[in-house]
Amino acid sequence: MTRARRSWVDVPAGSDFPLQNLPYGIFSDARSGPRAGVAIGAQVVDLHALARRGLLDDAAPDPVGLLSSPTLNAFLEAGRGVWRAVRERLVDLLAEGGNPALRADPDGVLVPMADATLHLPVAVGDYVDFYSSLEHATNLGRMFRPDGDPLLPNWRHLPVGYHGRSSTIVVSGTGVPRPRGQRLVDGEVVFGPTQALDFELEVGFLTGGPANALGQPVTAGDAREHIFGMVLVNDWSARDVQAWEYQPLGPFLGKSFATSISPWVVPLAALEPYLVRGPEQAPPPLAYLAAEEPWNVDLHLQVALETDAMRAGGQPPAVVSRTNAALLYWSMAQQLAHATANGAVARPGDLFASGTISGAAEGSRGSMIELTWQGQQPLRLPDGSRRGFLEDGDRVVLTGWCGDDGRPRVGFGDLWNVVQPAAP
Amino acid sequence: MTRARRSWVDVPAGSDFPLQNLPYGIFSDARSGPRAGVAIGAQVVDLHALARRGLLDDAAPDPVGLLSSPTLNAFLEAGRGVWRAVRERLVDLLAEGGNPALRADPDGVLVPMADATLHLPVAVGDYVDFYSSLEHATNLGRMFRPDGDPLLPNWRHLPVGYHGRSSTIVVSGTGVPRPRGQRLVDGEVVFGPTQALDFELEVGFLTGGPANALGQPVTAGDAREHIFGMVLVNDWSARDVQAWEYQPLGPFLGKSFATSISPWVVPLAALEPYLVRGPEQAPPPLAYLAAEEPWNVDLHLQVALETDAMRAGGQPPAVVSRTNAALLYWSMAQQLAHATANGAVARPGDLFASGTISGAAEGSRGSMIELTWQGQQPLRLPDGSRRGFLEDGDRVVLTGWCGDDGRPRVGFGDLWNVVQPAAP
Repeated sequence: MTRARRSWVDVPAGSDFPLQNLPYGIFSDARSGPRAGVAIGAQVVDLHALARRGLLDDAAPDPVGLLSSPTLNAFLEAGRGVWRAVRERLVDLLAEGGNPALRADPDGVLVPMADATLHLPVAVGDYVDFYSSLEHATNLGRMFRPDGDPLLPNWRHLPVGYHGRSSTIVVSGTGVPRPRGQRLVDGEVVFGPTQALDFELEVGFLTGGPANALGQPVTAGDAREHIFGMVLVNDWSARDVQAWEYQPLGPFLGKSFATSISPWVVPLAALEPYLVRGPEQAPPPLAYLAAEEPWNVDLHLQVALETDAMRAGGQPPAVVSRTNAALLYWSMAQQLAHATANGAVARPGDLFASGTISGAAEGSRGSMIELTWQGQQPLRLPDGSRRGFLEDGDRVVLTGWCGDDGRPRVGFGDLWNVVQPAAP
Repeated sequence: MTRARRSWVDVPAGSDFPLQNLPYGIFSDARSGPRAGVAIGAQVVDLHALARRGLLDDAAPDPVGLLSSPTLNAFLEAGRGVWRAVRERLVDLLAEGGNPALRADPDGVLVPMADATLHLPVAVGDYVDFYSSLEHATNLGRMFRPDGDPLLPNWRHLPVGYHGRSSTIVVSGTGVPRPRGQRLVDGEVVFGPTQALDFELEVGFLTGGPANALGQPVTAGDAREHIFGMVLVNDWSARDVQAWEYQPLGPFLGKSFATSISPWVVPLAALEPYLVRGPEQAPPPLAYLAAEEPWNVDLHLQVALETDAMRAGGQPPAVVSRTNAALLYWSMAQQLAHATANGAVARPGDLFASGTISGAAEGSRGSMIELTWQGQQPLRLPDGSRRGFLEDGDRVVLTGWCGDDGRPRVGFGDLWNVVQPAAP
């Protein structure tokens, strides 16, 4: 393995953001409002400032215009040619020996991440949530339908999914109010704050390029033209609300109160070295779902919990689950091909999430309902407290990174949110 | 009953668009691109032109800016005070004896509807589809779950619903390509064009006013501040795809290929005289779903079909179903209160559809699957053909109107689309 190229910008050891990553986000600071940036080490590269200096000329048509809006949607729409050219230019500018003028005068271009507020990176048009982990689908099937086969007959034939609510997609750091809802208690229908608030550890991809025309699917072979990059996703869930409402039309209010995503979108280009083949699929998928190339990501994932008391006592969040996205049965290319197989349109900025990612081992399950088996086996936390589901004040921290093997670490930063009490 | 006020603009007998309606839409013509308009008789009032003449001054802040964009979203966001003031102004300008200067020189403000192209009136953020007709839910339950109770235990406690796909919401007149999908044929999983293409006769409302904050529900009592108006909705469905995919997470590709809406949005203000109480609800709804005021609409609805051969032979579309939206078990105020009860955000331009509206009589069912009972009792059409489900070239025409009783007719115009062959 050749030694990885380094940046003249300082990248602390263990950083999620070396030169090999360069994830995109939207940030603001005291100087200016929300605009596009790229993370490197502990800095944000202000793409709008870079464009105004003329340093992105020829990498994109009208780079100043493309990168001045408060979302990444226009950049996503610009397509793979532009994504590639801008990424190559950024590497040229930021690598050791890169642009001396920028290095001599980085002021206004490099913003310390500590001074930046991170915003939702895209305006999500449609949000699809899949159900692509075999272990998660099996666990949920056992709990929600104890009398039947946990895996329904369609599961191994197509990536089961549903549409979630876009209006409640929020960025890391946003408070998540405990939702109210209808639930059954001892056979009585009651309404009030959920008693079974849960996280779901997921990853997702954002689509880009011009939208496909109505009636014209995106094939698995074309997926690279339409998948811009990935985010971490926490698909917050109210299990008691979900259990009562979900038949026959699927999850609705048990999910629609909040979905949080990481502020940094890691481009597919940065993930290419970590793409691997997924689990063997039996039966083999139909032709429209066949993807020749590896489309799973060897992406380490982790969930940590921190209670109010742990925070007050200076205790770090306690890791409650460790798993890997490579386990997913259905890949991103298959998910996108399926979601558009009926001619549905994928617009720039649409979010397709994986569904909860669980491994086979108990400590690798991606939700509280699985980790505690419906609250019956509570988690014990370092402050001595126990958790069947989440309590007010709990902070949930999702992390994800590629490269535990000497290769550059390509990560997403933290996706964290604190549970707030239900509004009065 | 006092005689209804009339307009100086000619309104042909039987028109959906008298002075009492004034529905909003987005239109373009040879002169200019997409902009806001209001229908009256066979004319479109160009709101942008009206604003530029200064005739909407004081009715809205910056009326020119508010009405120049190619969607109604900004106008919807402006809120009920602005909707009311603009409507009052329009009535003043267009009523007999109204603005003499405008009447003397309507050029550039009145555009013949025949010269106008109608566009999607709003950019829909999130699209929710409910399931609020007792008769429809019962019919579908009998077909999809023949061994169980047709109505699931939650149905009378909450308005069951799910999120649909916003990217494929299209306006009347848009061709609907036949979707491909997975389905079961004699126990084999196959992929190809649906063999069970269906329409669904629905109505929907569009939300407006500033979005509610995350975690802060819109109550049933506040619904008037947030419901701008209504559209006709055809929730196109592929029944074979739906039947195979829908468990356990609900409808996905069986619905997401197309949802069409009427070009005209009838404001709630025009529908107020036709609001009635809905069916008695037993058990009585929980407090958060209690709506004191009448929130159902006495809205006549009709579906007509026209085949290629009928069109060629000059035969008019054949009416295959007649029903009324007043039958809906769950009302608009209840639907909105429920959908936001968990704190989910309703943005200006979100669409909430009723679900298929079916009556008890056979001729009042709002979908082919019900009218033909899964294709087993085909419809006979005037050209001698039979239909279990829709065929390529079929034109589906939905119409809806209030006032069959001497009161002004307040209608939506036609919502029609032609089925196109699956893309090669």
